[in-house]
Amino acid sequence: MTTPTPARIPTSPASTAAALFRRPFVAGRPGGRPATALRARPAAATELVERSVNTIRFLAVDAVEKANSGHPGLPMGCAPLGHVLFDEFLRFNPTNPGWFDRDRFVLSAGHGCMLHYALLHLAGYKGVTMDDLKAFRQWGSRTPGHPENFETAGVEVTTGPLGQGFANSVGLALAEKHLAARFNKPDFTIVDHYTYVILGDGCQMEGVANEAASLAGHWGLGKLIAFYDDNHISIDGSTDIAFTEDVLARYEALGWHTIWVKNGNTGYDDIRAAIKEAKEVKDKPTLIKVTTIIGYGSPNKASTHSVHGSALGSKEVEATRKNLLWPHEPFHVPDEVKSHWGHHLDEGASLEAEWNAKFAEYEKKYQQEAAELNSIISGELPSEWDKALPTYTPESPADATRNLSQQCLNALAKVIPGFLGGSADLASSNMTLLKMFGDFQKDTPEERNIRFGVREHAMGAICNAIALHSPGLIPYCSTFFVFTDYMRAPIRLSALCGSGVIYVMTHDSIGLGEDGPTHQPVEQLFSLRAMPNILVLRPADGTETSGAYRLAVINRQRPSILALSRQKLPQLEGTSVEGAAKGGYVISDNSLGNKPELILIGTGSELEIAAKAADELRKEGKCVRVVSLICWELFEEQSEEYKESVLPCDVSSRISIEAGVTLGWEKYVGQKGKAIGIDRFGSSAPAGKIYKELGLTVENVIATAKSL
Amino acid sequence: MTTPTPARIPTSPASTAAALFRRPFVAGRPGGRPATALRARPAAATELVERSVNTIRFLAVDAVEKANSGHPGLPMGCAPLGHVLFDEFLRFNPTNPGWFDRDRFVLSAGHGCMLHYALLHLAGYKGVTMDDLKAFRQWGSRTPGHPENFETAGVEVTTGPLGQGFANSVGLALAEKHLAARFNKPDFTIVDHYTYVILGDGCQMEGVANEAASLAGHWGLGKLIAFYDDNHISIDGSTDIAFTEDVLARYEALGWHTIWVKNGNTGYDDIRAAIKEAKEVKDKPTLIKVTTIIGYGSPNKASTHSVHGSALGSKEVEATRKNLLWPHEPFHVPDEVKSHWGHHLDEGASLEAEWNAKFAEYEKKYQQEAAELNSIISGELPSEWDKALPTYTPESPADATRNLSQQCLNALAKVIPGFLGGSADLASSNMTLLKMFGDFQKDTPEERNIRFGVREHAMGAICNAIALHSPGLIPYCSTFFVFTDYMRAPIRLSALCGSGVIYVMTHDSIGLGEDGPTHQPVEQLFSLRAMPNILVLRPADGTETSGAYRLAVINRQRPSILALSRQKLPQLEGTSVEGAAKGGYVISDNSLGNKPELILIGTGSELEIAAKAADELRKEGKCVRVVSLICWELFEEQSEEYKESVLPCDVSSRISIEAGVTLGWEKYVGQKGKAIGIDRFGSSAPAGKIYKELGLTVENVIATAKSL
Repeated sequence: MTTPTPARIPTSPASTAAALFRRPFVAGRPGGRPATALRARPAAATELVERSVNTIRFLAVDAVEKANSGHPGLPMGCAPLGHVLFDEFLRFNPTNPGWFDRDRFVLSAGHGCMLHYALLHLAGYKGVTMDDLKAFRQWGSRTPGHPENFETAGVEVTTGPLGQGFANSVGLALAEKHLAARFNKPDFTIVDHYTYVILGDGCQMEGVANEAASLAGHWGLGKLIAFYDDNHISIDGSTDIAFTEDVLARYEALGWHTIWVKNGNTGYDDIRAAIKEAKEVKDKPTLIKVTTIIGYGSPNKASTHSVHGSALGSKEVEATRKNLLWPHEPFHVPDEVKSHWGHHLDEGASLEAEWNAKFAEYEKKYQQEAAELNSIISGELPSEWDKALPTYTPESPADATRNLSQQCLNALAKVIPGFLGGSADLASSNMTLLKMFGDFQKDTPEERNIRFGVREHAMGAICNAIALHSPGLIPYCSTFFVFTDYMRAPIRLSALCGSGVIYVMTHDSIGLGEDGPTHQPVEQLFSLRAMPNILVLRPADGTETSGAYRLAVINRQRPSILALSRQKLPQLEGTSVEGAAKGGYVISDNSLGNKPELILIGTGSELEIAAKAADELRKEGKCVRVVSLICWELFEEQSEEYKESVLPCDVSSRISIEAGVTLGWEKYVGQKGKAIGIDRFGSSAPAGKIYKELGLTVENVIATAKSL
Repeated sequence: MTTPTPARIPTSPASTAAALFRRPFVAGRPGGRPATALRARPAAATELVERSVNTIRFLAVDAVEKANSGHPGLPMGCAPLGHVLFDEFLRFNPTNPGWFDRDRFVLSAGHGCMLHYALLHLAGYKGVTMDDLKAFRQWGSRTPGHPENFETAGVEVTTGPLGQGFANSVGLALAEKHLAARFNKPDFTIVDHYTYVILGDGCQMEGVANEAASLAGHWGLGKLIAFYDDNHISIDGSTDIAFTEDVLARYEALGWHTIWVKNGNTGYDDIRAAIKEAKEVKDKPTLIKVTTIIGYGSPNKASTHSVHGSALGSKEVEATRKNLLWPHEPFHVPDEVKSHWGHHLDEGASLEAEWNAKFAEYEKKYQQEAAELNSIISGELPSEWDKALPTYTPESPADATRNLSQQCLNALAKVIPGFLGGSADLASSNMTLLKMFGDFQKDTPEERNIRFGVREHAMGAICNAIALHSPGLIPYCSTFFVFTDYMRAPIRLSALCGSGVIYVMTHDSIGLGEDGPTHQPVEQLFSLRAMPNILVLRPADGTETSGAYRLAVINRQRPSILALSRQKLPQLEGTSVEGAAKGGYVISDNSLGNKPELILIGTGSELEIAAKAADELRKEGKCVRVVSLICWELFEEQSEEYKESVLPCDVSSRISIEAGVTLGWEKYVGQKGKAIGIDRFGSSAPAGKIYKELGLTVENVIATAKSL
């Protein structure tokens, strides 16, 4: 099996933004807020709305029935909200799902994805055809069981694991607020879109949602509008059994504006009024609790958990058709519904054309800003950006890779317009502050240091969304390496959905010392190496740290984990940026003909130990090679010839040294080699003492070498 | 390196409870709530209180200074609260830290552990001597950098990773409420203790804390009293930069009673009044916000983040001594303070004696209940408990291991008094309901099905605490296997602190089918195998499922992960409970003399594929062995002879098959063997289709065998 890079959603090709500027000027309102931005579209006649709503309901029912798998309950309950939002409020261009200034929509309750697929289909997105709906949840289809941005154009983020999509929506709204603050001008509102999200009871219960909501309130994300599908049912039955808090009161405590739509089933005007009210509240995010009936229309299953996650069954489908006066065949879209939704194609094209025209004007007046924004929209990096990364020699002073990392972060933020990020309340330990910028805050959203508070989980999810908002936004986020455990779910989603977040993870071993085993990672390196489509980079010194950042920036469709030391490390002889790019390479060798007697393999802070042990062994006349295996994933991607040139098959005397578990090292040391590591939890003591007690020493490497 | 089993805290030896009952009857109040239960002890004179408070402050300051590492800020700010709580309210017996009916205290802001160590020392706990305080954060000391229950008697749970301790406190309070409801009688209040917890701003920001608080409010845990150390400072500076929500309003929305002590620095009477009020509120947990000054007394560093996590430095220590009128040498405990605290030894002994006497009476009147409670207190399992586990033959019908798991759970709950647990809103998918019990709820706390809602992270932390509350409480908890990612932090703490939680993780592979890659674990098996001190068990059929549960129950000081299938699996020929206990064993072989031509190794749902492939290959005359590697950790613990008898070194033709990443399998298949697995994310489609597309088939095993 190989690990394919996930396909990118077909957003604008990289050159689109540039190409657009070459288009002839189209008449329109060149500057200021366009009249359409806040205005809702005229609503269709209620009868037509109801037909559209039932179309959505039955597309979901029929697709789930055909797949005999899926979640009909949410689409049936939320179809009214879905219709009103998409048809009357959401600004998008179906023929270019990646249009930069579109409103963002996230279905955090991702199991209800047939709602989204049905809406995308009706709205004219070419990526969701009737055949796609009929292939719901089948191998190779564009309509998977949960929304996946890399499969379906029009899906912004990958959701399903509960709470993630809601936290993503906070990230999308943050990105908008940041870009608007940086690029809008008194005479040009060039960044101006809303973020809408639907979340259910399940999302509300997840801790990550509270973390994200607390941040959204703190940041005053006024253009974030969340719909809470309050249907009183989760998988185990009534929410009475586990979820009886006052959700709206909680959100008010978190600084949100709240609205309650008591009849989400037929109260179209209430839904409309709520969205209008929410859009007018500029200084706070809004939570609209929409009380709905899950499985609305199903005479025997509505309002029960049995409609949540299973097909209705043919008998109940028939009963539902009768109940909702829907005599049509499966997958039927009435002509008048089709025709009504058709206007979104033209309108979407006009919206984008209007915006393009405005951007062309903007570009004339604000060249520098337009160039930066263009880079963010297109994802094209400035030429020679990597020349900004610091360089080192073996004479450079010893330093912790977390400090060297800060030099890289600051160098990159200077040359990459979309580079921003922060730490989960450990900025001064993780060394992540961008010195030339202030804090992204409610009243200073143009700044680039994000203060996440002690909220690792939301931090990861927010960064995933920042990266997916625009190809040129490159978010980094940071905490102690051991606390990747708190954010494993969003890290996995980064890897799955191709979101190139840079995870700056410091204090990467027992080398952090006295804080003890709760803070000392030992299994985290491997647990992340096991994850597909992610780079785990453990640089050994300044040169490798710069090399690691270069790789992290280049890899826009897979995330990177940088495991960095708290403790000082010397600049090593033989490390290189080019070597790092291959994942593994020889940093020193006194053998000839690719036949060393012994290969010592190290990563990160233990590469120094390998190098020192080699020096000692060479003094005794041994032919020893030292290999830095900074990134296993990249090394595995090299040619067999290259790998053989670094780790020749014939050389079975191999020792690895890494301050983490040894499981997995068999891959490189083989059955005759030996892995030196830590197959237990750490301990609270000064770092040097722990290294010594656990045998991560030059002496132990030498003794092990002699025992082989 | 080997993985030592963490030492258990020296609680009562297993036989203590039984021994106690043999003691002569001691005069006292045999039944009913003792007068001391709600009464605070008389407070010392204010001057003495202040001396005691400053003693605590300077023990913390001096220990951090000596270690040149640690967190003086919290102990300096919370010393008044610590003194009042421990000296006037907390019920404990210093000479038996494991006395069953003690109040539980948790320092969720674990970095402030010198507060707890100082209090334990003053209170007379022998596990924390003056020498221990002087060895703070040193190798081998009983005063590690964060509180560890397995190192320090008097520490209930292991904290440090923020939010965990608070969620633990919810689990401790749940355990008390459950046991009280089951065992108290109108004439005997035999279970009656409070749970106190201190949490800081960092804990409050973590999502897990909100999850746990929502559950505590829902369950009405009236005997849980949480102190929120509101000092307005976190590591990055003022909480203004990331945490501006209204915390008390949030807790009110979650169903808590709230109190604000505005002067936590010198307002002793306010602290006392708040605790008294909180104890009187029976139907809701209470959050007492105690506004303090971090680093109180330090003239130049108080109220700044610099006092949070570093030694003050000798100059500032001196200035603080001057400021607080504390002329003493480092580590000084004034005689009058020592003498005052001395009374806790006698009082603690009396409290326990009184309780023992009451229990002796109770035992006479309620034999059955006393036997059950005794089993819970001592951790002694009923004899032949494991005979209750279901047995199967190859003729038993095929079934999903999640269903077989439910048979085991129900069998165990019948015979083990302390067996209880539940799922994170997936009970009907995880198959975790105990059929003979109802739901643990606010008004039915005697029941054993816990409804965690969609709160995996809190679920894990709550179960850790249930297990640590009493040796005989055996909690299980459940979600989809992929969502171990949401609860990795508490799983790690289970492993670190020796909490024998049973993690029932169903839908353990792409075999779950249509829900797609967000729900399909591929790297989770390996990422958990990398964790020290945890058993990852992946049973293949009913026999192995029973075997896995037997192991999970026996291993009280290391947690177990049971990875269970959604899909049906046949009962296999050759599987056994005894084999499972060895971690790996031969289920079939047609070779002689321990010399098979080929070894096929499978786990869980793929063992069937290995067995079928072997059947086919044997038809062609091959000598093939099939090995079930249900638990790598246990297999590694077997003798070299045993391992050689299963996987003889000389046989290099080996194929593993497992529906997960192949990284790590080099350990068993070697460099000449081949691991069949999934080194990518899964896909949304029917399970059989995915298995086929990804090559997890009998045909592929056969083809691979022929290619070796």
